[in-house]
Amino acid sequence: MKDYIKIQPWSIVEEGFDVPRNKVSESLFSIGNGRMGQRANFEEAYSGPTLKGSYIAGIYYPDKTRVGWWKNGYPEYFAKVLNSVNWNSIEVTVDGTSIDMAKTVPTAFRRELDMQNGLLKRKFTVTINGNTLHAKTERFCSMKRKNLGVIRYSLTAEKDCSIAISSGLNGDVRNQDANYDEFFWQNTQTGFYEIPVVWLTQETRKTNFGVYALCRHQWNEGQSPVSTDSTKTDLQVGMVYHFNLKAGETLTFDKYCVILSDLYVNREAFSRQGLQEIQDAYNAGYEALNKEHSEAWSAIWKNCDIEIEGDDAAQQAIRFNIFQLFQTYTGDDARLNIGPKGFTGEKYGGSTYWDTEAYCIPFYLGTASPEVSRNLLLYRYQQLPKAIENAEKLGFKNGAALYPMVTMNGEECHNEWEITFEEIHRNGAIAYAIYDYINYTGDKEYMASHGLEVMIGIARFWAQRVNWSNDKKKYVMLGVTGPNEFENNVNNNWYTNYIAAWCMRYAAEQYDKLSKSADDKLLEIKRKTDLDSAEVADWLNIQANMYLPFDEEHNVFLQQDGFLDKELIPVSQLPASERPIVEHWSWDRILRSCYIKQADVLQGFYFFEDDFEMETHRRHFDFYEPFTVHESSLSPCIHSILANKIGNEEKAYEFYLRTARLDLNDINNDTCDGCHITSMAGTWMTISKGFAGIRVRNGKLHLNPVLPAKWNSMRFNLRFRGNLLGIKIVQKGITVQNLEGIQTEIICGSNSYTISASGEIFIG
Amino acid sequence: MKDYIKIQPWSIVEEGFDVPRNKVSESLFSIGNGRMGQRANFEEAYSGPTLKGSYIAGIYYPDKTRVGWWKNGYPEYFAKVLNSVNWNSIEVTVDGTSIDMAKTVPTAFRRELDMQNGLLKRKFTVTINGNTLHAKTERFCSMKRKNLGVIRYSLTAEKDCSIAISSGLNGDVRNQDANYDEFFWQNTQTGFYEIPVVWLTQETRKTNFGVYALCRHQWNEGQSPVSTDSTKTDLQVGMVYHFNLKAGETLTFDKYCVILSDLYVNREAFSRQGLQEIQDAYNAGYEALNKEHSEAWSAIWKNCDIEIEGDDAAQQAIRFNIFQLFQTYTGDDARLNIGPKGFTGEKYGGSTYWDTEAYCIPFYLGTASPEVSRNLLLYRYQQLPKAIENAEKLGFKNGAALYPMVTMNGEECHNEWEITFEEIHRNGAIAYAIYDYINYTGDKEYMASHGLEVMIGIARFWAQRVNWSNDKKKYVMLGVTGPNEFENNVNNNWYTNYIAAWCMRYAAEQYDKLSKSADDKLLEIKRKTDLDSAEVADWLNIQANMYLPFDEEHNVFLQQDGFLDKELIPVSQLPASERPIVEHWSWDRILRSCYIKQADVLQGFYFFEDDFEMETHRRHFDFYEPFTVHESSLSPCIHSILANKIGNEEKAYEFYLRTARLDLNDINNDTCDGCHITSMAGTWMTISKGFAGIRVRNGKLHLNPVLPAKWNSMRFNLRFRGNLLGIKIVQKGITVQNLEGIQTEIICGSNSYTISASGEIFIG
Repeated sequence: MKDYIKIQPWSIVEEGFDVPRNKVSESLFSIGNGRMGQRANFEEAYSGPTLKGSYIAGIYYPDKTRVGWWKNGYPEYFAKVLNSVNWNSIEVTVDGTSIDMAKTVPTAFRRELDMQNGLLKRKFTVTINGNTLHAKTERFCSMKRKNLGVIRYSLTAEKDCSIAISSGLNGDVRNQDANYDEFFWQNTQTGFYEIPVVWLTQETRKTNFGVYALCRHQWNEGQSPVSTDSTKTDLQVGMVYHFNLKAGETLTFDKYCVILSDLYVNREAFSRQGLQEIQDAYNAGYEALNKEHSEAWSAIWKNCDIEIEGDDAAQQAIRFNIFQLFQTYTGDDARLNIGPKGFTGEKYGGSTYWDTEAYCIPFYLGTASPEVSRNLLLYRYQQLPKAIENAEKLGFKNGAALYPMVTMNGEECHNEWEITFEEIHRNGAIAYAIYDYINYTGDKEYMASHGLEVMIGIARFWAQRVNWSNDKKKYVMLGVTGPNEFENNVNNNWYTNYIAAWCMRYAAEQYDKLSKSADDKLLEIKRKTDLDSAEVADWLNIQANMYLPFDEEHNVFLQQDGFLDKELIPVSQLPASERPIVEHWSWDRILRSCYIKQADVLQGFYFFEDDFEMETHRRHFDFYEPFTVHESSLSPCIHSILANKIGNEEKAYEFYLRTARLDLNDINNDTCDGCHITSMAGTWMTISKGFAGIRVRNGKLHLNPVLPAKWNSMRFNLRFRGNLLGIKIVQKGITVQNLEGIQTEIICGSNSYTISASGEIFIG
Repeated sequence: MKDYIKIQPWSIVEEGFDVPRNKVSESLFSIGNGRMGQRANFEEAYSGPTLKGSYIAGIYYPDKTRVGWWKNGYPEYFAKVLNSVNWNSIEVTVDGTSIDMAKTVPTAFRRELDMQNGLLKRKFTVTINGNTLHAKTERFCSMKRKNLGVIRYSLTAEKDCSIAISSGLNGDVRNQDANYDEFFWQNTQTGFYEIPVVWLTQETRKTNFGVYALCRHQWNEGQSPVSTDSTKTDLQVGMVYHFNLKAGETLTFDKYCVILSDLYVNREAFSRQGLQEIQDAYNAGYEALNKEHSEAWSAIWKNCDIEIEGDDAAQQAIRFNIFQLFQTYTGDDARLNIGPKGFTGEKYGGSTYWDTEAYCIPFYLGTASPEVSRNLLLYRYQQLPKAIENAEKLGFKNGAALYPMVTMNGEECHNEWEITFEEIHRNGAIAYAIYDYINYTGDKEYMASHGLEVMIGIARFWAQRVNWSNDKKKYVMLGVTGPNEFENNVNNNWYTNYIAAWCMRYAAEQYDKLSKSADDKLLEIKRKTDLDSAEVADWLNIQANMYLPFDEEHNVFLQQDGFLDKELIPVSQLPASERPIVEHWSWDRILRSCYIKQADVLQGFYFFEDDFEMETHRRHFDFYEPFTVHESSLSPCIHSILANKIGNEEKAYEFYLRTARLDLNDINNDTCDGCHITSMAGTWMTISKGFAGIRVRNGKLHLNPVLPAKWNSMRFNLRFRGNLLGIKIVQKGITVQNLEGIQTEIICGSNSYTISASGEIFIG
């Protein structure tokens, strides 16, 4: 665990430069605006280890799948987010010597991610040829102008010197995770407009996504280039400005970049719109752009900030988690989704996982307008035909839908049979998110307009995926991988069987409800899906007769058949030198061990908590948690919430810190690859569902807070239906303000409280 | 199923040329001599689809492993047999036009594999520029001179013409199965000796195996080149001879090739020995070399031929199987083993599998001197340290040995976790082969000198691989893949548990036996392996308390835990369009189905037949065979033997044809990749153990024949201890001749018969 990050409530701060941690910092200090984002690579030339990354939302490449032995049903391609045109490079030479931090060790190095204003700031001092230079940089991806990135680079020298600044656009970018070292781009063209604005266009191979980038430079009054050159090759283009910098004076060099993609702008309009946007930005100038960007962040924070008093590490961490989520996804486009690393790295291909439904949707439900979550649901709705195709490839029929484990455009991308073909519980989470969204927002229309079609496809899948066991006289589900990926190809994973039964029941209920309503939408759905009530009756029969492994002796549901054949040795007895086991043990050893990667049975208890008595909750938590190694970033948050539920405050807080500071402290030793964006939503849930105990039942907001002992107070805003509520929890009570919306009601414990418009209540 | 091969007792014959089947023929007509071998690629230029293959025994390359997602314990490299210097090319042009069968369709095409004499023969007629040419070729890898390959190419033209023959050595050869399209050779040099002899040397990258090849040409009296050229590049070298061929005359062109590897010859001696061998061959001349080669094959056939009267398809097939086995492995070098495709293709990397122990050793025991099988055992003995290392990589300790699933030099090569880490029953087969060898040959010394060390490593592995189940109060074995690879990561595979228990028991027995003998070898073994009797007692305890899944209702052992949860629909009800399922079904569907790829429970019944009553045999065969799809080439032979045992003669014969003609009829549609060499040994077992009912019990040979109704007689020679027996079975009796060795005894039914030296008995 690394702990070099300084703790400040609104900032992530690194002081002093250290080559070995630079890739971790590149991830942590990433910036983005939902439309594009980039790792915190230095502007200057840097010859040390680095993972260069500039990403544009929705632009992917179908990299050829790599496997050892091909299995029928594998996808041919693995769509992955692309490293795209690099626009953040500003190479500086001082009297002919390049600033390169791997070669010239900087002093007074300070890097800051100003989360309140969405700024990446840096300052440092270097001595080159006996001259000491002080540099300051600021960079942001504008939250106001989604195609705009801006950098301010300031330099003060202690002696007169000549400075050359080379800056432009570089299309010679590769993915380090390319399966066959392919270059993913083609048809790159570069050029100059007279102004001078430099431009570069290129498109992805195979998928033919077009990208158009421009940049223009500016410098402060009093400084002017003594000469100007340009550079241009097939893949990169830029300007070189030569300045004579006087001792004590400051050169402030601004770089404005516009990046357009044909997801949003027709290629014919690229140059016209690009030039317009770059000129607008240039005319507005750095200060104004910075200001409007900062204001856009203020508007976001207004809905979603969480203030914690008395625990700065917790405070910094929750803001970092929220900040990264909104940098990744802002919710205005149903074609986009949330990759596990967002714009902070390549790992996991930037694709969509069930993380979105199980973790991110609750976050956006609570912190943004319902349209954001609705767009995430529509993403899956639009991919239903592909999910049906995907199921067909695996031998399912009649409109059964299996959503992919990993996807960019609805097609499956993963290439391990035990995951691709068997980790099918994802279908359950996708269905659950429909329930969750409707339950939270009250948007009942969604079921008839979109939800039911998805539910039908999913229910059909489960109905075909089970089989009748003559031995057990129950429906069984063979050959699955549950959320605990440290088990593969098991029979009757309790979580999967449980959520499958729920899906069939919920789909049947919704069908029934709609058939009793006046809405003739059902007729259309039935025609479209060729559904009849006999099929619905079949779902009800299967869910009622689903086998759920249970052990009488321990009085617990079993994670899967045969779980009790394992040697049950608690994690606490494992030598520290063998943790994490995924790095130390061979796969077969992990598989036959009792160790649980992430909540599995307990994930079911989390989703369906009201199906179980408190005592049952406790018993299962106490049985399974001791065997859980939490080697998935998605694990601690669920355990924190459940620990809070059963009154285990110590564990709840321990798991909170583990999820909240996962990247800040590089707990899994992999932050260098990028931040764990989706699990950050889980951190938010530990606050809202965990410490605040928020639930929605029968359309009412429930609060049931347990503040960690260390905290003086916790305050956050929450969107719930038409209201924006300000909720402040102190050790001795709760204050709820009705910040937006009409009079509303909340339930705390067994009492109901009414809060008038703009009103405030205190619950002692 | 293809059936273009003409049925002849001693020959494989193809008449007429057909491009689509050429790759199948290239496999079927392969030739080899245990030291080298090659696919039946044409001598002429050929622009149609072909899999070029020339292989040298024991020369491999560690190709970088390719996987989708890395798992701890995977081997970094996959050793594979290499396509080596191509020496069989003789390119012919007629008046400037090249003979290329893909372009000039030949007539009167006939290809023959003369199995009695080990010759690949071919003749054809082509018309080029209005001139008709008749060609005849003969090729062999000498069984007498193991480094020698010889080709005779004869050409008769109907009109005068000029012929150019280009022939030499080509080192620009690649493996089609290379994981990253790497070229596996380096430091290639080419040249000429004055005589002229052309030479080429190269070595493998990484493993640095050196190869040195030479060739020299000769032509018949009356024909002389009018001119001679040479060709030489970095990677290939050759001569070009120009002849003026008169109408009606025949040019007979001979090519002698010597291929040396530094497995047998020091590199310093390459040129001296190579030149000597090529000159010796040249001086001997084609006819004499052909004769001595044919005599060497006669000596082999003397020990191993099987004659079947009344069923030419069966006759041809068994000879083909035996022939290919002896082409692949002749048993004089314990560093070599038997790749699943021998020298007939690249697939499966040419590496060693458990096929050797379970299938090939019984074949060589019966058909060759005991040294051959002993060398196959020594191969594993020599790799024991690597097997211990392999187990250590997976977390085992204290000298536990896990032999690799796939290997060339003792290191694991496979890259699927469910096979590499979990298909551990291979350890059992390797132990069983020690028992089998000693039981058959009576070589009791072997246990103390080598066998016990291997048994200790294996017993230790099993003892660590099981765990105590508190639930079952038995030792269980979790997370394995049995012989039926259509199940992965199952718990308590009956076969694996059974053979593991047997290994521990057998190791303990042998330890006990040795400790009671006067031999002080045990002391040395105990010191070397750090073994004590407490550990041996532990093995006995574990094997006595091993869990063996059993179902009361069906009264059968279960293939694994949970087998009865499956839908049990017999294979006979599967639509033909979905067979083989491995080509039509997705992997998850196969896994959760009841379908069995190859004998699994029944493999155990085959190995340990005397542990079970006949009625138990019948019940298990009747329960499992109907769910068996036999999609492994290793399946039909075991089922044929067991069907014979239980008196199901019809099935026994059906399975015999399926195993015997697997490649000749391309039953699995994959003979184009190479022949199924190791399962050919299984074919021999269906005759010897199946129809002849041969067993060795208490040092005595038992015969219990059931001749297929269609056969008039079956005759074969069998090596058993000091004797060579000629066994002829007719419908009404058995004749046994004692061809070599002193007086011996055989048991038929419950009677014992004595046969004097050179004697013969008839059992009616």
